[in-house]
Amino acid sequence: MNTTTSISIRRARREDVEAIVKMLADDPLGRDRERIEHPLPSCYFGAFEAIDRDSRIQLVVAEDDNGTVVGCLELCIMPGLSSQGTSRGLIEDVRVATHCRSYGIGEKLVTWAVAEARAKGCKLVELLTHHTRVDAQRFYKRLGFMPSHVGMTLRS
Amino acid sequence: MNTTTSISIRRARREDVEAIVKMLADDPLGRDRERIEHPLPSCYFGAFEAIDRDSRIQLVVAEDDNGTVVGCLELCIMPGLSSQGTSRGLIEDVRVATHCRSYGIGEKLVTWAVAEARAKGCKLVELLTHHTRVDAQRFYKRLGFMPSHVGMTLRS
Repeated sequence: MNTTTSISIRRARREDVEAIVKMLADDPLGRDRERIEHPLPSCYFGAFEAIDRDSRIQLVVAEDDNGTVVGCLELCIMPGLSSQGTSRGLIEDVRVATHCRSYGIGEKLVTWAVAEARAKGCKLVELLTHHTRVDAQRFYKRLGFMPSHVGMTLRS
Repeated sequence: MNTTTSISIRRARREDVEAIVKMLADDPLGRDRERIEHPLPSCYFGAFEAIDRDSRIQLVVAEDDNGTVVGCLELCIMPGLSSQGTSRGLIEDVRVATHCRSYGIGEKLVTWAVAEARAKGCKLVELLTHHTRVDAQRFYKRLGFMPSHVGMTLRS
């Protein structure tokens, strides 16, 4: 990977699931949550199919010019009554492969998601980022996001 | 309203839209975002229809025993690859009518949403609450939510 590598963003396909899950697992928080086994547990493919048939959700990957998946992002468009019935976009599971960071791939993914959400009529794009991810917060602020909310979670 | 009033939670109907929007507007943050006019602007009904036909979204109201709508909540179930392909539930637009606060209606709504999300296979329920809503944060903590994330937003 170098600064001249071109990155394209495309809809994720079933054959990308393993690369995506590896990126999710290669992370201080994701490490204990994922199962990297061969073959990959079927739960991931079941989830992929649910995502793939959901017209409001787009799971995309960033691909380098060798066809290698180097990033991912999930965007969910949700209709809602508030703010005069405007939809909102929720960004989840943003990851960039460790060896490909600092090349602007995350920015490309998030900029794509914001533009896509706006094109679908969203006037609000939101995301939750773990409070320990201070670099991520700085990154999102640089892209115009405000740390306006507390993101609260309940895990079973 | 008194402590013996029984509250039921049911799916919102088109005729509830006005009551819901009034609750959304009766709020320091919602005041400037909504349009309370007679008749209510059609954008709200368009959004209601989009919500109503979306099988992953449930907009519910809390109704007192006179049939008056006194609270609302939107729950969105989203499939995702992370955490071994478990879905997550996102709670949005939680409101309780001003004159009906402190009767446990919000708790009933959120408890319902958490149970419903779990029943649909979610191992994570999340929400964003404005950083100025300290009472709301205390309320969610009491129900088991952790302020684990920063909620970042971008408004157009």
